[in-house]
Amino acid sequence: MIDLGKNLSVVTRRTKSSVIRELLKLTNQPGIISFAGGLPDSSLFPSEIVADIVGDLAKKFNRAELQYGPTEGMPQLKEELIKLHAKEDGINIKSENILITTASQQGLDLVGRAFIDASDPILVELPSYLGGLQVFQSYGANIIGVKCDDNGILIDQLEKKLEQLVQEDEHYKFIYIVPDFQNPSGITTSQERRKKIVELSEKYDVLIIEDSPYRQVRFEGQAPELIYKLDHTSNVISLFTFSKTFAPGLRIGYMIAHEEIIKKMVKLKQSLDLCTSTLNQLIVAEFIRQNHYTKHIDKMIEVYRKKRDVMLSALKQYMPEEEGLNWTTPEGGLFLWVRMPAQIDTSQMFYKAVEQKVAYVIGSAFHCDGSGTNTMRFNFSYPSEEQIETGIKQLAEVVKAEMRTKTVSLSSK
Amino acid sequence: MIDLGKNLSVVTRRTKSSVIRELLKLTNQPGIISFAGGLPDSSLFPSEIVADIVGDLAKKFNRAELQYGPTEGMPQLKEELIKLHAKEDGINIKSENILITTASQQGLDLVGRAFIDASDPILVELPSYLGGLQVFQSYGANIIGVKCDDNGILIDQLEKKLEQLVQEDEHYKFIYIVPDFQNPSGITTSQERRKKIVELSEKYDVLIIEDSPYRQVRFEGQAPELIYKLDHTSNVISLFTFSKTFAPGLRIGYMIAHEEIIKKMVKLKQSLDLCTSTLNQLIVAEFIRQNHYTKHIDKMIEVYRKKRDVMLSALKQYMPEEEGLNWTTPEGGLFLWVRMPAQIDTSQMFYKAVEQKVAYVIGSAFHCDGSGTNTMRFNFSYPSEEQIETGIKQLAEVVKAEMRTKTVSLSSK
Repeated sequence: MIDLGKNLSVVTRRTKSSVIRELLKLTNQPGIISFAGGLPDSSLFPSEIVADIVGDLAKKFNRAELQYGPTEGMPQLKEELIKLHAKEDGINIKSENILITTASQQGLDLVGRAFIDASDPILVELPSYLGGLQVFQSYGANIIGVKCDDNGILIDQLEKKLEQLVQEDEHYKFIYIVPDFQNPSGITTSQERRKKIVELSEKYDVLIIEDSPYRQVRFEGQAPELIYKLDHTSNVISLFTFSKTFAPGLRIGYMIAHEEIIKKMVKLKQSLDLCTSTLNQLIVAEFIRQNHYTKHIDKMIEVYRKKRDVMLSALKQYMPEEEGLNWTTPEGGLFLWVRMPAQIDTSQMFYKAVEQKVAYVIGSAFHCDGSGTNTMRFNFSYPSEEQIETGIKQLAEVVKAEMRTKTVSLSSK
Repeated sequence: MIDLGKNLSVVTRRTKSSVIRELLKLTNQPGIISFAGGLPDSSLFPSEIVADIVGDLAKKFNRAELQYGPTEGMPQLKEELIKLHAKEDGINIKSENILITTASQQGLDLVGRAFIDASDPILVELPSYLGGLQVFQSYGANIIGVKCDDNGILIDQLEKKLEQLVQEDEHYKFIYIVPDFQNPSGITTSQERRKKIVELSEKYDVLIIEDSPYRQVRFEGQAPELIYKLDHTSNVISLFTFSKTFAPGLRIGYMIAHEEIIKKMVKLKQSLDLCTSTLNQLIVAEFIRQNHYTKHIDKMIEVYRKKRDVMLSALKQYMPEEEGLNWTTPEGGLFLWVRMPAQIDTSQMFYKAVEQKVAYVIGSAFHCDGSGTNTMRFNFSYPSEEQIETGIKQLAEVVKAEMRTKTVSLSSK
């Protein structure tokens, strides 16, 4: 075989196997209760409705449901998306503002591909979505983290970083925000912060990437507006997906942006995969059109809210009361975020947790600067209520033991 | 909006809208008989079987058919592919040698992404597949064309180019070959040439990309062996797809290579789209497992062979007998290739053809060096037999008129 070390491209050499992938392998052992994944609950998938829809499609589309489709996406799906966003978000988009993507991971790849040259700075939240960080890294971005609190990214810190980039004549490209029930933290960016982010985008003439896979999975409270809606200068690209609200196995997502941006993205997507599955786009379009989608989300919200509540009350019941040990209470989504006292390293604790048959994702994986070593992400959508209860109980024992060790080692210093 | 000219990446600026895309827009006018596309005949798509399979999947996989799948691909599909290739091509591959891709366009993108840094030379056939050329160009490849005859790439020319690259200390990356019923030319690389290509690959330590979307669509004659089979040094990456033999709307393809190469590709694919549609992979796996696939191909071969024959006899009947005017007789696939006398420019003639309600793809689009201005590609899988007959008749009139003009203008010089 050719010498891979001499033949692989720079991009490939930059695409490293992440620590987290190695850790996740450990969580696949039998008997482990895993809060590490990010999968939807399979038992909710509407398989029967999908089968019925596929049966109808053949008649309705005269077999064209299995043909190539336009790179931009199927007009039938775009039509449903236009209606959906008008109704739910009060935005008025046109077909030219939408590109259907092979789920939102492709949206992220397109964003990276379209805008990042090696060493271009981009700004992300601390913590941020791992899949996004990995893509941007593969394109060689200089990823700059900005701290967050429970209302989202810290505006003064964001402005400071932007100002610094301007001073340094840096060619900064975009701010990447996951505003709704963020993966990993579960935090929602407040309405006020969203407005301020948009103001900074105008002031510094910088693009905002709004990545919102969970927006519709809201258990309670009022949704802040889409950043896309608040923007006045077409500086926002918004990414959505049906992976969490319908079925990830279909790989259907989409991007909303100014039509000039969409045109560029269409050209890029053509060389990535020509078009997204016609069949799957039409399944989603019909699922929305036949009013299954809203009902499905309502059902899902009920199940996930219950699971979140079980996790929250188990945390309250079993976790030790300690200064610095706390967690977020997400108003929706699939994840919550646990912060431990500073002396606890969750990646060291991870192996002990796995020994006790319970797993999570280490928080540092989501921090572009390697911080967050005392944090961890818990998923509550995939495990059953029983598993959540048992898993948190087991994990609380691991945490208590770890705290004792650290207190001892600290006091013995 | 941000200034796109200042913000778009180098890759995006390199991804140009092709002339051909602009030309193709003209072919979408009503009443035009188009030989320009490359679509399978939709009337052959087995929609009812697909609907039945989707109905079964829910029961069989307990809704996991709609869940995320592994980046590598679903084991059920890989198992069928292993059996299929053992039976049809006499190759013995393992699961670790296969990566399921979002159709073969993603396979091409992965190859480009994995191996090409800007200015790296690669070697391609003259003509070659346009989708491949566009991807490789987007990664900044220095694309070097090698002439072909009716048995495939010219070995002495290929070796000369390789030798020159060695002399120039160039970092050449791979040889890209479409060996079976090539798109665009319809030509099949002979067994002897395949062996010689493999010999050169060993001698010059260079990777071969074997792109074979049409291999199973053989109307007659004996298939030469896969280049993958002839190789002894794991220097071959082979790309396949179900777009032509089953349904492009599913976007299912795959790559076969040494497991070390597959491992690298898996990492890259993860950032492209995480995984290919689980549902669609399982549809294909079941379609093969339930023995529909072989029957379906047999039916398709019959239909396409007939269409090819109609096109060949119409060409013979209507085209003028002229020195330099000839066409290929493909033993399979979807395309044939027409060569005109050197003074005819098929891109000038294109507009006249469209006026006469018939369209093709200009041959120069498939030539990385801009040659082939007197050639054109005809697709026979999508138009009906009647359209083929009528379209060729109309086109023959355009050709005759063009030849008269050119003869007059030549003699008046």
